[in-house]
Amino acid sequence: MKRVSIRDVAKHAGVGSATVSRYLNQRGYVSEETEQRIRQAIQELDYTPNELARNLFNNKSGMIAVLVPDSWHPFFSAYVREIEGELYRHDYRMILCNTIRSEPESEKRFFDMLKRHIVDGIISGVHHTENVREYAEMEQPIVVLDRQMGDIPMVAANHRQGAVMAAELFLEKGCRRVLQFSDDLVVSTPAHQHNSAFEAYLRDRGVEVVNWSNDMNYFTYEFYRNSAWAAYEAHPDVDGVYGTDLYMVYFMQRALRDGKRIPEDLRLIAYDGTPITRMLTPVLTSVVQPIPGLARAAVELLMRRIEGESLRGEQVVLDMRLVPGEST
Amino acid sequence: MKRVSIRDVAKHAGVGSATVSRYLNQRGYVSEETEQRIRQAIQELDYTPNELARNLFNNKSGMIAVLVPDSWHPFFSAYVREIEGELYRHDYRMILCNTIRSEPESEKRFFDMLKRHIVDGIISGVHHTENVREYAEMEQPIVVLDRQMGDIPMVAANHRQGAVMAAELFLEKGCRRVLQFSDDLVVSTPAHQHNSAFEAYLRDRGVEVVNWSNDMNYFTYEFYRNSAWAAYEAHPDVDGVYGTDLYMVYFMQRALRDGKRIPEDLRLIAYDGTPITRMLTPVLTSVVQPIPGLARAAVELLMRRIEGESLRGEQVVLDMRLVPGEST
Repeated sequence: MKRVSIRDVAKHAGVGSATVSRYLNQRGYVSEETEQRIRQAIQELDYTPNELARNLFNNKSGMIAVLVPDSWHPFFSAYVREIEGELYRHDYRMILCNTIRSEPESEKRFFDMLKRHIVDGIISGVHHTENVREYAEMEQPIVVLDRQMGDIPMVAANHRQGAVMAAELFLEKGCRRVLQFSDDLVVSTPAHQHNSAFEAYLRDRGVEVVNWSNDMNYFTYEFYRNSAWAAYEAHPDVDGVYGTDLYMVYFMQRALRDGKRIPEDLRLIAYDGTPITRMLTPVLTSVVQPIPGLARAAVELLMRRIEGESLRGEQVVLDMRLVPGEST
Repeated sequence: MKRVSIRDVAKHAGVGSATVSRYLNQRGYVSEETEQRIRQAIQELDYTPNELARNLFNNKSGMIAVLVPDSWHPFFSAYVREIEGELYRHDYRMILCNTIRSEPESEKRFFDMLKRHIVDGIISGVHHTENVREYAEMEQPIVVLDRQMGDIPMVAANHRQGAVMAAELFLEKGCRRVLQFSDDLVVSTPAHQHNSAFEAYLRDRGVEVVNWSNDMNYFTYEFYRNSAWAAYEAHPDVDGVYGTDLYMVYFMQRALRDGKRIPEDLRLIAYDGTPITRMLTPVLTSVVQPIPGLARAAVELLMRRIEGESLRGEQVVLDMRLVPGEST
C-alpha cells in the first residue's frame, strides 16, 4: 500500500502542497473554506501527517537525550525514572543512553544528534575528560547533572552539606576510626566534595579516616561487592563506614557474616539513600540525595535553554537530608 | 547564523540539489568527480546533513520505543538496560516510556508515533486491556515481552518451569504451609502460569497454599512493603513464602524483625532473582529470569519484523534457573 502523501491531499482538496503544509503546521494564512476542503481530504484519504516532515519544518524533534553511565545503578535508575516523568509532562520523549559501554564515543554520538536536530537537548550525567572541550563549545541546549563543564548549566545536591551531616553523626556516636569509600573520578564533579569535606571535618576533630579508593568506571554489582568485601577484610577493625549505597550494602553484608553487631560494633551511613538502603536488616542510616528535585531542576533548566535563555554558569544546588535508620 | 542547506552545498559544488541528495543517501549514480566536488563543498561550508531530512527520505527514524510499567522496578530496570545495549549494537536508539503514569493513554501515543514514523518499532512490556485490539491490528513492527496479544511475536521466560523448580524445593525442605504472592493482573500474560502452576504442584502433594493477592498496578516501594508486611501479619505461621523479589525482600525484613530464624522457621524463594536478592542477609534463594536473554530475543525478533518478516504467532520461551541462597 502506497503511503498517502501531502501531495495527494493537496490534489484531492484542489489546493497547492504549500497550502496543506501551512494548514498542518498552523503557520501563515489559510482561508476557512480551504481549511475545510483540506480537512475533508485528510479524512477521505485517511492521511497521517508525517511527523518527521513536521519536525523538519519546525526544527524540533520533541526528543531529549538523557545520558547516564549505567541505568541499572540504583541512583541512575531512580533519576532516569524521574527525568522521564518530568520530560513527559513537558511533552518531550526521552532517549536513554548508557555511556558505560563505549564512553566517550557514545557521548560524542549524541552531540552529533543534537547538531543534526534529532534531539532538541541533552541532559548529561556523564562525560569523559576527552569531551569537556566539546561540551563547553556546543551552543545547543545541554544541562549537566553533578558535573562541572565550563559554563554549562548544572544541577547538583549540596554534597558538602551531606558529608558534614554524616560526619557529625559519626562524631556524636563516638566513632574513632572511620573508613570512607571514594572514587578516583576521571571527571570534574562537585561530588568530589563529599569525600574531602567528610575527611576534613573528622580529621579536624581527631577522628582517624581510612580512605578506600576505587576507579569510578566499573559500574557492576560484582565491582561493588568485591571492593566492599576487600575493604572489610583489610580493615575489619573500623568502627564506622561511609560510602555510596552499594558499598554500604555489601560492606554490611560482609560484616554481618563475620558476626559484627550493628550498630554496637560498627556504624554505617550510606550516601545517596536510594530505596535499597531501607530494604535491608538493619535498615541503613543514609544521607539522601533529592532525586526528584534534581530531575525537576534539570528538566526546568533545559526547557529554559530550549526557549533561548543562555543560563551560562547557572548552578542549582539542592539540600540533602539525613534519614536515620538502624545502622547508627 | 543561517543554517547551511543542501541547496548551498549544491550551488557551491556546481551541481543540482538532487545530486547532493543522491550522494548523501548513497542512492543512485554519482560520478567520482562530482562526489569529490560535493565532499569538498561540504567541508568548506561545514555542512551537517539534517538527519530528519534523511530519515524522511529513508522512511526510517532509527528509534525504537520501549514501554515498561515503571523503569525503577528492579526487573524492568535490568531489562531496560539490556534492551538499550542490544538496540545500540543494532544501531538503534531507545525511547523509554513508563506507562504507569498514564496508561492506556501513553501507550496509545506510542502507537501513533509508530504510525507517524517517529519510531521504527515498539517493544512493549505493558498493555492495558483497552489496547489489546489496537495492538493486534497494527501492522507495524511490535514485539511484546511476557504478554499475550493476538498474533504479535512474544518473548517470555518459562514461568511454569520456574514455578515447579520453586515448588519442588519447598517440598524437599518439608514445608507444609506456603504463602504465595500473586497479582490480580489486568492483562493477559504467561506470567500468570507461575502462580497457578506453583499452587497446583504443591496442592497435589498435600501442601497447603495460602494466596495473597494484589492489584498489579501499584509499582511503588511502599506498595510492596505494605503488602508484604500485611501478609506476614495475617499469616506469621507459614513455613514457606514465594513471590517476586520485592515481596520477598520486605517479607523477610518483617519476619527477621519478629525474631524468625531463616531458613529454620521460614523458607523464602524469590521469583525474578534480580541482584537485589543477593544483597541481603541472608541471601535469598531465587528463581532467576534470564533478563539478558529476554532482551536479546526481543530485539532480534523486532529486527526481523523491521526487515519485513511477519513472525505472526512467533513465541520465544527461555529457561529459568534456580540459584540457591541462604533462605532455604
